[in-house]
Amino acid sequence: MKVLSKNKIKLISRLQQKKWRDELGCFLAEGTKLVIDLSTSFKCILLVVTPDWLKDHLPIQTEEILIVTSEEFKKISTQKTPQGVLAIFKKKETKWLFPEISSQLCFALEDIQDPGNLGTIIRVADWFGISNIFCSQYSTDVYGTKVVQATMGALARVQVHIVHLPDFLIESKKYQTPLYGTFLKGENIYTTSLTTEGIIVLGNEGNGISSALENIIPTHLTIPPYPSENFTSESLNVSVAAGIVAAEFRRRLVINKKI
Amino acid sequence: MKVLSKNKIKLISRLQQKKWRDELGCFLAEGTKLVIDLSTSFKCILLVVTPDWLKDHLPIQTEEILIVTSEEFKKISTQKTPQGVLAIFKKKETKWLFPEISSQLCFALEDIQDPGNLGTIIRVADWFGISNIFCSQYSTDVYGTKVVQATMGALARVQVHIVHLPDFLIESKKYQTPLYGTFLKGENIYTTSLTTEGIIVLGNEGNGISSALENIIPTHLTIPPYPSENFTSESLNVSVAAGIVAAEFRRRLVINKKI
Repeated sequence: MKVLSKNKIKLISRLQQKKWRDELGCFLAEGTKLVIDLSTSFKCILLVVTPDWLKDHLPIQTEEILIVTSEEFKKISTQKTPQGVLAIFKKKETKWLFPEISSQLCFALEDIQDPGNLGTIIRVADWFGISNIFCSQYSTDVYGTKVVQATMGALARVQVHIVHLPDFLIESKKYQTPLYGTFLKGENIYTTSLTTEGIIVLGNEGNGISSALENIIPTHLTIPPYPSENFTSESLNVSVAAGIVAAEFRRRLVINKKI
Repeated sequence: MKVLSKNKIKLISRLQQKKWRDELGCFLAEGTKLVIDLSTSFKCILLVVTPDWLKDHLPIQTEEILIVTSEEFKKISTQKTPQGVLAIFKKKETKWLFPEISSQLCFALEDIQDPGNLGTIIRVADWFGISNIFCSQYSTDVYGTKVVQATMGALARVQVHIVHLPDFLIESKKYQTPLYGTFLKGENIYTTSLTTEGIIVLGNEGNGISSALENIIPTHLTIPPYPSENFTSESLNVSVAAGIVAAEFRRRLVINKKI
């Protein structure tokens, strides 16, 4: 049984800050399902586990493993009820090319600020078979601890790319990629014709999609409130909107296949 | 210009705990839109504002108002960029009766633990014209500061009732209320016939709907993942699921009206 060195505790604590994640090219994950899921897609550099965790689980492949007591583990855990497993993974370069992207359904996210929202959108993408998400440069860091936790492991299966969003969307038009955006005022999504592929743009929590992007996007979609008149709510949470829009694109695809 | 007394600071700090909210029958809200929205539905006991806020806004009706400097305001603010308005509202008794409830679409939530999820579900309800939500006794407190903030004011328009959920659902059957629940394995929501009214049950984040409730609910709905086979994601976030299911009930209602 080992004791966590001061350096290791410092390293784990530092990785909660974007500055250090960028500098070291690594990120943190804690919890059984999350660590196991991510180990299928990211290289594990350090695995910290308790003997109790090891009794019930096979250790994942890792450069270094530390087995520590539950008391030691609590020093580094960020969870209320620690499960006894924490890992440092190496970030990876993500890859994408345009002709391929244009034949898929993708999300593009403009300046999403809330880590929980970004993580939940990655989980939505995973559920609906969306493999690529394009984030603006001013979005919250996808490797942030809260984002990673909120993906519930979906980050292992969905690639998140950081791009200059206006340039990316303009470039996508060269490949005839259909572009959709969600707006408070737009066409009712249920009566608009939707393609099977394309890029769905979702805007910032407070401001929605910026006017710079609005002008690039030909199809403005709206999720109709109920009742459609005199409604009082001003917006839906962006991850809820992502779920409703993705569900409708996929529903339409399955219906069309049947016809 | 006043200085915040120690007692006021203590009161505001205490209201972040459920124990004190229950004891005092009050809750906190901060931010312009939230405070103004809630003031249309809840009685304001104390309003704390900065002179800058008062310049641009009419004060809402309140038993007591304190105008304090921005420096003073920061002492009580829980936000990164304080907007200069914080209020203490009186909780209110919520009312519902069975024959009425049975003719509406409602949510029933079993042990929702995450404040952000509960707040987002209240916002979803507001968007889709769902006026009543029934929460199990072990749900996170609806008057918790994070819940109230996440509702973005929707709490002013949606009534949230705490009930013994199994008894409530059994009682609802006496009034022929259709009961639906969301499950990982159930009938595809898009090919199941849905009524315009009824109770949609959503389960706990980690465990879903308990077997006790499962047996009471005749219609088990599933949001189909895509592709429908070999999917790897294990679940959707509960507030996203609430959004997708509510959207589908309302879409169906509008379609049926047109036919």
